[in-house]
Amino acid sequence: MTDEGPLPAAFDPERFRAEGRAVVDWIADYWATLASRPVTPTVAPGEVLSRLPARAPAAAEPLADVLADLERIIVPGLTHWQHPSFFGYFPASASGPSILGELLSAGLGVQGMLWATSPACTELETHVLDWLRDLLGLPDRLSSAGPGGGVIHDSASSGTLVAMIAARERATAAATNATGVAQDTRPLVAYASLDAHSSVEKAAGIAGIGREWLRRIPVDHLGRMNSAALAAAIDADAAAGRRPFFIAATVGTTASGAIDPVAEIAAVAARHAAWLHVDAAWAGAAAICPEFREALVAGADRADSWGFNPHKWLLVNFDCHALWVANRRPLVSALSMKPEYLRNRATESGAVTDYCDWQVPLGRRFRALKLWMTLRMLGAEALRGHVRRHVAWATEFAALVAADPRFDLLVPPNLSLVCFALAAGDDATRDLLDRVNATGRTFLTHARVTDRFAIRLAVGGATTTRDDVLATWRLIESLA
Amino acid sequence: MTDEGPLPAAFDPERFRAEGRAVVDWIADYWATLASRPVTPTVAPGEVLSRLPARAPAAAEPLADVLADLERIIVPGLTHWQHPSFFGYFPASASGPSILGELLSAGLGVQGMLWATSPACTELETHVLDWLRDLLGLPDRLSSAGPGGGVIHDSASSGTLVAMIAARERATAAATNATGVAQDTRPLVAYASLDAHSSVEKAAGIAGIGREWLRRIPVDHLGRMNSAALAAAIDADAAAGRRPFFIAATVGTTASGAIDPVAEIAAVAARHAAWLHVDAAWAGAAAICPEFREALVAGADRADSWGFNPHKWLLVNFDCHALWVANRRPLVSALSMKPEYLRNRATESGAVTDYCDWQVPLGRRFRALKLWMTLRMLGAEALRGHVRRHVAWATEFAALVAADPRFDLLVPPNLSLVCFALAAGDDATRDLLDRVNATGRTFLTHARVTDRFAIRLAVGGATTTRDDVLATWRLIESLA
Repeated sequence: MTDEGPLPAAFDPERFRAEGRAVVDWIADYWATLASRPVTPTVAPGEVLSRLPARAPAAAEPLADVLADLERIIVPGLTHWQHPSFFGYFPASASGPSILGELLSAGLGVQGMLWATSPACTELETHVLDWLRDLLGLPDRLSSAGPGGGVIHDSASSGTLVAMIAARERATAAATNATGVAQDTRPLVAYASLDAHSSVEKAAGIAGIGREWLRRIPVDHLGRMNSAALAAAIDADAAAGRRPFFIAATVGTTASGAIDPVAEIAAVAARHAAWLHVDAAWAGAAAICPEFREALVAGADRADSWGFNPHKWLLVNFDCHALWVANRRPLVSALSMKPEYLRNRATESGAVTDYCDWQVPLGRRFRALKLWMTLRMLGAEALRGHVRRHVAWATEFAALVAADPRFDLLVPPNLSLVCFALAAGDDATRDLLDRVNATGRTFLTHARVTDRFAIRLAVGGATTTRDDVLATWRLIESLA
Repeated sequence: MTDEGPLPAAFDPERFRAEGRAVVDWIADYWATLASRPVTPTVAPGEVLSRLPARAPAAAEPLADVLADLERIIVPGLTHWQHPSFFGYFPASASGPSILGELLSAGLGVQGMLWATSPACTELETHVLDWLRDLLGLPDRLSSAGPGGGVIHDSASSGTLVAMIAARERATAAATNATGVAQDTRPLVAYASLDAHSSVEKAAGIAGIGREWLRRIPVDHLGRMNSAALAAAIDADAAAGRRPFFIAATVGTTASGAIDPVAEIAAVAARHAAWLHVDAAWAGAAAICPEFREALVAGADRADSWGFNPHKWLLVNFDCHALWVANRRPLVSALSMKPEYLRNRATESGAVTDYCDWQVPLGRRFRALKLWMTLRMLGAEALRGHVRRHVAWATEFAALVAADPRFDLLVPPNLSLVCFALAAGDDATRDLLDRVNATGRTFLTHARVTDRFAIRLAVGGATTTRDDVLATWRLIESLA
């Protein structure tokens, strides 16, 4: 190494070629052996940490040593989210094409904070979100051809937060962003159902609204927001001089996959000029299938923002949340900062989109690539088949549950999500879930559904088969 | 395809092996040819978009077609941030090891939101941040062995936001998170210098504090916060019944790399029990070199939070912001949400860290891998050499500027950042920068420094050589 050159190991193309192949092979081998691994680890808190050396190495170590430690120390401490028998939470399914897109994004290493900092990064993002809007049958109102358009965020939590910030901005004519929130005088009030995702309440805390100013609206027996209760709550707030400003409707609740009556909620929102955000994080992906679409996009034509996660059920590896807004102005107004060092002619021309104005962070990586590659290399028809099969297998699983008198199907399955319990009660159900997961052969998680402890089966894995779903049922019934 | 199996293309190990090699080779070729490409593109707004088809394909397309379009349509529209002659903004330098870490993270596809959702993902993160704290010589107070510890965020903007949220929580005994911000009665006031990063003001808007309640404190002739002016401002606010709650000190301003007097600021913060956040986004990396450390970590022993971006100058590809807090309690108190479906025994035991409670999003990918691989495969000594060479080349560049009577070196160079202008004035300097960048042979950006339009040279590329830096100077002087 001379003092005139770079660090040779930082990026040597020939070395990268060789090491890249080794890592690609490692990943291929990992996926090929996933089914034979226990889905969940058995490590105790601190166990992984205790096997790692206290100090970073002064000298370089070879890739082979790192991969050996990965296999020896790290992998045994992982829950394998890509395992074919992972049925917990919601899926976060990767795919070959999306992983390659993430790799290309890292290899290109460009920053898309401004249009000017890498124009193609911004324009491909606008482009694939228009593709996706079209595939989902979302209204033209959310297209980039109008005053709104789409953007990629890391997660639905961030999408919900910026929607709430934009709503706050619109409701107060930009005052909250400039002079702060003033909840002790005429408080701003937000609304979401009792079953809405925790990120709505988290956003209310972050945005200075206060978690207590998020009204949790009751749900019906199927977990759907009661729109009459919403109307009553919002009318009462307005009558008391408070300011209803934001409603989050859920399309596919985390607990049971319930779909709020968005069209009814939109009517309530319109009466109070409240911002309507639709959180379709998981279920939204199924709108690519015409037969599921109507229930999922109903009311979207009156939404101010609508988001879902291609990283859940559409085979794009985490992170990839797609958010559309009907009007970008309040969002940009609240989040734009253009200090001298970011000023440029393209921005000043008004002819470009600067996506840093649509999000919390300034920097942003080229996430559109992985969405683009997944859509192109798999194709829309294959993605529809992927969703359809999971719905069919979950439906079949639910029928098996319903036919077994020891079990209660708590609600009809929503898409590929099944919620069930032992008739013997919560303690028995919890105990069963623990014993099922302890086998390491499958993994399911729980929720509260119809006020009972529910076991949830969420089908969505990239390599999951019907046999995996049926084997999980056989395991459950044998341990019941 | 049968109805019983998965989508074959979603993840086939043999197909992934072949396609993975093709993409690895594409990236190696891209890096090998980077130096011969223009650093910046010449596309007009909408030009890339106009070359992309209006609808997503129904049927799968081969990787070769996607790579062809990438080369033909996308790459000509990119600013090449990894180009050896990219000297704009701050670097966002990737490296072979970090790209492989990102690839492994995508391939594993695990979620680290809770310890329980993949224990090794959380523990490796805690581990590498302790390594990094040690390498930078940051105080024990920020170690995970105590009540605080480190976490990875996407960017410094997010780190600053959560620090402000934690500060708000601490200053109001959790009231703002619960019942909202009340800026019209006893306003909370934040402080940062005029040269602090725009993300501090953006955070004040998002957090409901209001941008106007961020006091911008004057800087001295070198761009450093005037701590006497800070003390005067904060005393005046306290005397008027307002609540000073948050101070952001900058270690390495974006404009000129100036370092605020953190120890003096810490004394002011202590007097008012205000949260002290240190934003060392770019410059912090240089603390791995003992000779630069003292100036960079001074006062860190009294900071409540301290963050920098390994993705800027430490060869970890974007995104990777390292944030440490002295006490995790107010952060977790403000950001924790544990609905039924996230509850688990490990969390309830209190023996584990759930990193979703340290950030805005719920989900999180396994970013510790790329930091771990970069530190191990390059080694601390090589990283020190990387930083030292850039500082030496920038110093040499600055001497050339200072020796040319047509130019003014506006401030002494800070580490690897040089700010200069033509003596002939702002218009001439701006025109020169435009002409230099129009060659496509190098790329620099601008800022306002000592109230003049300044050209900034920020050295930090993974493959940048001394020759690249000197060639940029020769180009500049030939066009001046």
